[in-house]
Amino acid sequence: MTDTAPASGRRRRDSVDRRKEIIDAAAAIFSEKGYAATSIRDVAEAVDILKGSLYYYVKSKEELLFEVIQEVHQGGLANLEGGRRDGSALDRIRSFVERHITYNARNLAKMTVFLHDFRSLGPELRAEIIEARDVYDRHLRALIAAGQAEGSVRATIDPRLASFSILGSINWTYQWYRPEGPNTIEEIASEFADMAVNSVRSPGWTGKA
Amino acid sequence: MTDTAPASGRRRRDSVDRRKEIIDAAAAIFSEKGYAATSIRDVAEAVDILKGSLYYYVKSKEELLFEVIQEVHQGGLANLEGGRRDGSALDRIRSFVERHITYNARNLAKMTVFLHDFRSLGPELRAEIIEARDVYDRHLRALIAAGQAEGSVRATIDPRLASFSILGSINWTYQWYRPEGPNTIEEIASEFADMAVNSVRSPGWTGKA
Repeated sequence: MTDTAPASGRRRRDSVDRRKEIIDAAAAIFSEKGYAATSIRDVAEAVDILKGSLYYYVKSKEELLFEVIQEVHQGGLANLEGGRRDGSALDRIRSFVERHITYNARNLAKMTVFLHDFRSLGPELRAEIIEARDVYDRHLRALIAAGQAEGSVRATIDPRLASFSILGSINWTYQWYRPEGPNTIEEIASEFADMAVNSVRSPGWTGKA
Repeated sequence: MTDTAPASGRRRRDSVDRRKEIIDAAAAIFSEKGYAATSIRDVAEAVDILKGSLYYYVKSKEELLFEVIQEVHQGGLANLEGGRRDGSALDRIRSFVERHITYNARNLAKMTVFLHDFRSLGPELRAEIIEARDVYDRHLRALIAAGQAEGSVRATIDPRLASFSILGSINWTYQWYRPEGPNTIEEIASEFADMAVNSVRSPGWTGKA
């Protein structure tokens, strides 16, 4: 009896690892071929198990898609929660951009699926993801508005449009970033943060950021 | 005999119009459902003709996709060719952004297909589109480098990264822009051009733009 607990613990851990491996493989294939063109069989072959055995871990292709998108969503929320809370609004915008760029670059396949294939989810799951994207967008708009209140961000800027401009610049990384490219993630994060901050900075503002 | 020329001219014109209508309908459906999930039958139903009759105008679903993407490519080249050639590099970056934003907003469905579904093309057509995107990217990098040479753009900026940042901000519009939204295309184009120019502007530069 004393042996079964560790053994079943190990089995559970193996099963969790296996599920994670399957979700990672699904993200890679969805991002390459697109969700609609991918079959459950493609995913099973990538992790070298039988299609029938795959159903032990996930119920459907849509569940795989939702898991990938859900993981990105959780990562995004963690980015917001871990962002800088002190300093000027420009400091906080810089921190937002750096964290988000870093996350995107490290999770390229999953970000691609998140941005491309969420339309393939059913209406309810889709609404959940749109809500998640709105949290992000509202957070950045609030930072821009705070910058206008303190004088660090140009007063004439529309926070909604500025937020879309900065998010676009960040999210677009999935289209061109490759780990083997000429720049480190840190260089890209720092350069993009500079450009985002300067794109909204008030000319009269003498603070650093 | 004198009647046949105008009649056949009219027929040809009708046929061209019909083909254009089919391509526009395909763009709308691809952008909504994704290319892989769309059938030729969906397109035929949207323009209210029989599937068999549709093959009189186009050979395949891939031809429809290529036509949509090709049209966006031509529009993009026209944007470059019509852009401002005088003034500082910042003036020319402003013109680039304004024209590109305006085009994207006016061709929402086709831009969505261009950005999402070009992976569904076969390798040759795909290479053609990647080449077209590179033309755009090289043009913007050259403007940024010209700005560094004249002193209007910060010397420390990497033109490659700055170009990706600005293109991302522009291209992302397809994700959020809706004609019924609160801003006119002109307002959006002007605001985005301001942000792009400020994101790279040299602090010491006293020129307008």
